[in-house]
Amino acid sequence: VIDLPDALFTTTQMAETFSGEARLQRMLDFEAALARAESRAGVIPDVAGADITEVCRAELFDVPALYREATVSGTPLIPLVRMLTELVPDRSRGFVHWGATSQDAIDTGMVLQVRDGLGRLIEGLVAVGEACALLAERHRDTAMPGRTWLQHALPVTFGLKAAHWLAMTSRRIRALQQVRSDISLVQLGGGAGTLASLGGDGTRVTELLGEEMGLAVPELPWHTDRDRIAEVVASLGIVAGSMAKIAGDVALLMQTEVAEAAQTGAGGRGGSSTMPQKKNPLDAALVSGAARLAFATVPVALSSMIAEHERALGGWQAEWSAVPDSFRFTAGGVERTRSIVAGLEVDPERMRSNLDVTGGQIMSEALMMTLAPHVGRDEAYRIVASAGERAVKEGRHLRDLVLADDGVRAVLDRAAVEGAFDPLQYLGCTHEFIDRALTGFRETVRNLD
Amino acid sequence: VIDLPDALFTTTQMAETFSGEARLQRMLDFEAALARAESRAGVIPDVAGADITEVCRAELFDVPALYREATVSGTPLIPLVRMLTELVPDRSRGFVHWGATSQDAIDTGMVLQVRDGLGRLIEGLVAVGEACALLAERHRDTAMPGRTWLQHALPVTFGLKAAHWLAMTSRRIRALQQVRSDISLVQLGGGAGTLASLGGDGTRVTELLGEEMGLAVPELPWHTDRDRIAEVVASLGIVAGSMAKIAGDVALLMQTEVAEAAQTGAGGRGGSSTMPQKKNPLDAALVSGAARLAFATVPVALSSMIAEHERALGGWQAEWSAVPDSFRFTAGGVERTRSIVAGLEVDPERMRSNLDVTGGQIMSEALMMTLAPHVGRDEAYRIVASAGERAVKEGRHLRDLVLADDGVRAVLDRAAVEGAFDPLQYLGCTHEFIDRALTGFRETVRNLD
Amino acid sequence: VIDLPDALFTTTQMAETFSGEARLQRMLDFEAALARAESRAGVIPDVAGADITEVCRAELFDVPALYREATVSGTPLIPLVRMLTELVPDRSRGFVHWGATSQDAIDTGMVLQVRDGLGRLIEGLVAVGEACALLAERHRDTAMPGRTWLQHALPVTFGLKAAHWLAMTSRRIRALQQVRSDISLVQLGGGAGTLASLGGDGTRVTELLGEEMGLAVPELPWHTDRDRIAEVVASLGIVAGSMAKIAGDVALLMQTEVAEAAQTGAGGRGGSSTMPQKKNPLDAALVSGAARLAFATVPVALSSMIAEHERALGGWQAEWSAVPDSFRFTAGGVERTRSIVAGLEVDPERMRSNLDVTGGQIMSEALMMTLAPHVGRDEAYRIVASAGERAVKEGRHLRDLVLADDGVRAVLDRAAVEGAFDPLQYLGCTHEFIDRALTGFRETVRNLD
Amino acid sequence: VIDLPDALFTTTQMAETFSGEARLQRMLDFEAALARAESRAGVIPDVAGADITEVCRAELFDVPALYREATVSGTPLIPLVRMLTELVPDRSRGFVHWGATSQDAIDTGMVLQVRDGLGRLIEGLVAVGEACALLAERHRDTAMPGRTWLQHALPVTFGLKAAHWLAMTSRRIRALQQVRSDISLVQLGGGAGTLASLGGDGTRVTELLGEEMGLAVPELPWHTDRDRIAEVVASLGIVAGSMAKIAGDVALLMQTEVAEAAQTGAGGRGGSSTMPQKKNPLDAALVSGAARLAFATVPVALSSMIAEHERALGGWQAEWSAVPDSFRFTAGGVERTRSIVAGLEVDPERMRSNLDVTGGQIMSEALMMTLAPHVGRDEAYRIVASAGERAVKEGRHLRDLVLADDGVRAVLDRAAVEGAFDPLQYLGCTHEFIDRALTGFRETVRNLD
Repeated sequence: VIDLPDALFTTTQMAETFSGEARLQRMLDFEAALARAESRAGVIPDVAGADITEVCRAELFDVPALYREATVSGTPLIPLVRMLTELVPDRSRGFVHWGATSQDAIDTGMVLQVRDGLGRLIEGLVAVGEACALLAERHRDTAMPGRTWLQHALPVTFGLKAAHWLAMTSRRIRALQQVRSDISLVQLGGGAGTLASLGGDGTRVTELLGEEMGLAVPELPWHTDRDRIAEVVASLGIVAGSMAKIAGDVALLMQTEVAEAAQTGAGGRGGSSTMPQKKNPLDAALVSGAARLAFATVPVALSSMIAEHERALGGWQAEWSAVPDSFRFTAGGVERTRSIVAGLEVDPERMRSNLDVTGGQIMSEALMMTLAPHVGRDEAYRIVASAGERAVKEGRHLRDLVLADDGVRAVLDRAAVEGAFDPLQYLGCTHEFIDRALTGFRETVRNLD
Repeated sequence: VIDLPDALFTTTQMAETFSGEARLQRMLDFEAALARAESRAGVIPDVAGADITEVCRAELFDVPALYREATVSGTPLIPLVRMLTELVPDRSRGFVHWGATSQDAIDTGMVLQVRDGLGRLIEGLVAVGEACALLAERHRDTAMPGRTWLQHALPVTFGLKAAHWLAMTSRRIRALQQVRSDISLVQLGGGAGTLASLGGDGTRVTELLGEEMGLAVPELPWHTDRDRIAEVVASLGIVAGSMAKIAGDVALLMQTEVAEAAQTGAGGRGGSSTMPQKKNPLDAALVSGAARLAFATVPVALSSMIAEHERALGGWQAEWSAVPDSFRFTAGGVERTRSIVAGLEVDPERMRSNLDVTGGQIMSEALMMTLAPHVGRDEAYRIVASAGERAVKEGRHLRDLVLADDGVRAVLDRAAVEGAFDPLQYLGCTHEFIDRALTGFRETVRNLD
Repeated sequence: VIDLPDALFTTTQMAETFSGEARLQRMLDFEAALARAESRAGVIPDVAGADITEVCRAELFDVPALYREATVSGTPLIPLVRMLTELVPDRSRGFVHWGATSQDAIDTGMVLQVRDGLGRLIEGLVAVGEACALLAERHRDTAMPGRTWLQHALPVTFGLKAAHWLAMTSRRIRALQQVRSDISLVQLGGGAGTLASLGGDGTRVTELLGEEMGLAVPELPWHTDRDRIAEVVASLGIVAGSMAKIAGDVALLMQTEVAEAAQTGAGGRGGSSTMPQKKNPLDAALVSGAARLAFATVPVALSSMIAEHERALGGWQAEWSAVPDSFRFTAGGVERTRSIVAGLEVDPERMRSNLDVTGGQIMSEALMMTLAPHVGRDEAYRIVASAGERAVKEGRHLRDLVLADDGVRAVLDRAAVEGAFDPLQYLGCTHEFIDRALTGFRETVRNLD
Repeated sequence: VIDLPDALFTTTQMAETFSGEARLQRMLDFEAALARAESRAGVIPDVAGADITEVCRAELFDVPALYREATVSGTPLIPLVRMLTELVPDRSRGFVHWGATSQDAIDTGMVLQVRDGLGRLIEGLVAVGEACALLAERHRDTAMPGRTWLQHALPVTFGLKAAHWLAMTSRRIRALQQVRSDISLVQLGGGAGTLASLGGDGTRVTELLGEEMGLAVPELPWHTDRDRIAEVVASLGIVAGSMAKIAGDVALLMQTEVAEAAQTGAGGRGGSSTMPQKKNPLDAALVSGAARLAFATVPVALSSMIAEHERALGGWQAEWSAVPDSFRFTAGGVERTRSIVAGLEVDPERMRSNLDVTGGQIMSEALMMTLAPHVGRDEAYRIVASAGERAVKEGRHLRDLVLADDGVRAVLDRAAVEGAFDPLQYLGCTHEFIDRALTGFRETVRNLD
């Protein structure tokens, strides 16, 4: 944590997964696995695989010096190969990075970071989902105003809102699983993607390399076929946006005038230095910020697809910053969302009383649907709209006006009118939707490897 | 075609799929199917489904008037429902749009457009793939310089380049199929997503509606769960970027000094008004332009995910422009890419002669790999690098210098040296990669519904 | 108005300024002015200038046919020059487009559209400013809760809020004026930007062309120097964002629970088809949508700067769509914001009562600052915070608790305590800020040409 | 330098200007200046200003601990004020951060970083400009192919190309000066932007604070008026794009087949680990990468303008990452561009010989313009086009065909024909354009403060 964005927009774990040292270690993992694969294939001496593997440990390297040299060489592989070669015993020194090109190591190293990062994000999303599931169950019948265009529309329950968050989270888990499976690929193509440097052994070495690293073998090397990377980054953007939807809802619910929910803060979170009464939705703001920053990496990854011939000039290099940022910011968003949802204090009484702030107008549709079978939909609309207008003008509760309306009373008794004003009797498929979201989440978790 | 972008950055078919009239028709398709579903469910009278379906035809509407009214109402549904109701016979008039909210019609209508649009894009990509496959087969052995950082690196074949284009196209076809399956969903939630307006019939009506429209039923209504829309738009951005990769390669190959390929133009395409000698890569420029424009829609869709409570305020509305644009521009990119690849004139002689413009230096690695088994990799690198430098300085062919080098000749005979300068002998797994791309494409096409 | 985005996200005037017909007319304006300039310079016969000018009228052209041909030629100039030449009398036919390149006409034509468009936007912003100024003056003393992190913080007045909107609008007017002055430039460079086609007359013709069109002469032709275009588009993005700030505030104020302001709608704007009680912030949603769409054009213009050598391949072409879209969406945002601000119903009573929903807690800082001179800041903070907590717990008004606190009463009398709870006595520099914003706006308007 | 992006996409100086430690120091600078201003205004005791200033030094703080605490508090000001208060002697302890809100310190601190950063960028651009000016002068008459759509069009000189780079750089310097002047503003508004916490002293303290910091006083506090920040970030994006235009041209010129220029690399820059012959345009790739990354920050800043009421929720926080990134990446682009232009090896012979690769076709327009006065423009076009086609078909030089054409020879003698094939005689206003760019740059530099 050396600057503010590290503190606010990511997690320690994801920062480590995409640190400069981890980047180096993952490239060294490639070099080690490549050497072992080539030893097994008989392309380099048996001992070389073991010798090279032995020293492919980041702690043996002067990491800042390596990156400083990269400032001059423009790529981290030139200093890496030089430094690695110095560490390898004489007998195996000539076999470092055999047959590979810089991009093979850089891309495969990044794939390993990405695979780890996706695993962490999936874990984080599962935790978000668990917290949402608890809320969905607990607040299945906690009626609150449903809001469209930020206006009261019809009643919903808070459990339904949490169920929406949950269903979206489940979809994002499944999407990341798919993406992780698609991107867990070896990159090995040599100088121009033909593997000519390995003579007739290219295919065999690639397969063994995949085995060594637990990565699949792609149809073709993909030095300038970056569509899969774009998919990873776009998928993360969608995760970040999904989290920001949740956080946004919470920030709106926390408004002073609404006050239906609040994030309980450990450690005085959300306090203000000059206004003792404040309880700020800090995490919600940070999730929103993290999403904007994660979104910003998506166009970078898209434009990187336009890669020149057999090695890109600018686009690929931009990935070196954009891909880690994509993971960092998305992880920050997921973790802060988990913290919001897991620590959410819901106020059912306030929700209930907010349901009534319009003097029953939120039940207009319910009333209209109750009337319609008796008087027709058009007439029902007319009655409700005109009673509604009068209620607003006279500052009265809609129910009172309706109860006093002879036309209405001719077709509905008091109990029927009052029933039309009970939010819990106008929830439609709410319970079913909640159940589906819960079931969907449980299946999603069950199917995780 | 009423302005330049319509002419350049889309196709007539996609413009029609996303025209104002098609938008209206697709919303009417929803209203008709909803009425039939509700008739079948016994929610509205039997005759209403038929009556409403009968008039759900865009040609019965004054389309410009409808959209002009939307300027005032802020949503197209208010004039649509009004105009539609006027067309319906008295007996069924009260059952138009029964139980639905505006967004149900707008979203389901858009889903229908999106499903059509994805179908068209898949067709377009198959045509791109077929053209790439032809090139990959025909130019399996057409050697050319592989270029990294826009510099000659190692020989490849043009067939390999086309195989990369092909494999990426196959992946994009499969991705769009997945996306089409994920998004082919009914939207039906009513005013706040609970389907309360349908009482106990919500689930049943939704299922029948799905049946009527050939769309799946989602777990929950998704008024403010826009992650799936973001996936559609992001997927299209990735398609557009993949096309721009192909077009970019062609533009670079068409450069005056490179001249290895050219797009043959029907109708004088690419001519200049003042420079008779020009053959401009017009389509490549337009594919690049279309990709930039398609990319621009992705952040719009990402930010739309941050939707307020039960109905979004700004984000959803922006989709009404961004989603059609995403399809229009991507379609333009796909079609122009097809035109480029299908009409590509490849110049194998020029490729061959370009392979030699560095005086054999492009074969340095091949030479080094030939020498390495005899003198070790380091010594081989040293010999080749020093001969290479001399060759540049003296303006001679690398082969001549090497043939005159006693150290080399002690271990390699003339044939071996000359073999090291034959690009066709240094292609590694090229053939295998081409075969894999061809097989992958054929399977992809076979699996299309 | 042929599709929904035309209806919602732009204005009729801006749609006309950037229509396909206007595009053609503006390119014809260039061709006419060029011919006259060249006649005046003696480069082409005297009569040619007049002959060509005579037929440079869009209504003489088959506009759809012209753009259809552009689909084939990839640029609108080839059909334009052909069609124009056919209209010109024999004697002058050879002098059409003399010495110019396609991009000269396309760019200068676009500059004319941009100049018009900027003029319209400035007018629109002045109207927004006037509406804001009225509110700032009228509500100078209309106290309301200031909200930070969507929580009540301290009192402000609605006039101050409007003053912020006003000051930002004034800055945007000045910025657009600057941008209009910077971009009002001739483009004339010929085939590669040297004006070689005009021999020794290049400079002279350029100056006369500038005179004819009322445009300045740039240092150099700017075919691939697109920084100025990027500035235009970025400036519009900033205008669109400024409008969305205003609209966003209004949407938040219109929330059912807040209800401090509402946009009065002519024509039933904001009504709902099923919920008679709704008053939706439709225009605010559309301003937010328009801003997102305008933002999306900015990265397109930025990437267009990376233009290849003497004519770009893809970036310039993308401008043909992105620049008009930038204007269209920004104009939509400005006009809908004007409509919001000009039609805003402010509810001072509600603002006043909302100020009290926290039971006086919003005045905590005021109370603390009143206490601090007597007991020190830390002690004051402690007293207020602890009273605040008790007030929340016991559901009492903060004032009552404080009045009952002996420590407080030892240093403050009742009037002093009550004064600390009067929002109008805790407004700091509010009036001064309002005055500055009003003065700044008036000066800005005065300095408009 | 702890990770690859630090090494490649920024400069050490800019990394320091926007380091976590610099961020802290700049906020402390605000706190110190505020205390001094308040002492001068008599708002706090005289000694407090000095006492607080004394300890406002970042080296007295545990920087990582401060940012770790910010992870919990969500803002850096809470730990900062706490830690700072601990360092201040008892007598002044109560006056730390007097009357200010967190955002006052964070924003003013960022303004100071931004002012420094803009200064550094201007210096960097001046260095780029100087290198371009040298090339523009030296290569005033170095003829080379002008290229449009990546095709040979007409001759230009390399000096003209450099003059374009120079004129764009001059404009960017002037734009950054303007932006620096616009953004060098105090932020001081207190909790809700009214300065109520300073009672009647708000204006006076603000003015003194401005004096202390060398910053101007804005019309109004600008907590949620972020248009100026958006302007800063957009301006940097335009700078980054301008640099990428230059770098892009160089990468294209460095292509193996073109080879008209190369970046000379100290320290083996651009070498390849396996291909000894490579000279890669590394810096050009990194400038392109840096531009993409800088562009990505622009939409973040645009969306941040949509700030909620008196303090934003998400947008402002995103600036904390996006603004530093904008500066870092732009600085990287500027510095690498300087390195490219200053170290550019231009090959005039190669340029000259490339001019001839089309067998004289690049002079078609020159020939046509030479013929036109004698035979009319249409006939001239016809003659040249048909000779051009024959030349291509027969593989002959256009000049030879033309010299053998009786129709031509009837109106032009051999010298006239040969003159039409001399690029140096067909440069139009090239010299004048170069002179204007040089003059413009010198004036721009002269006007720097």
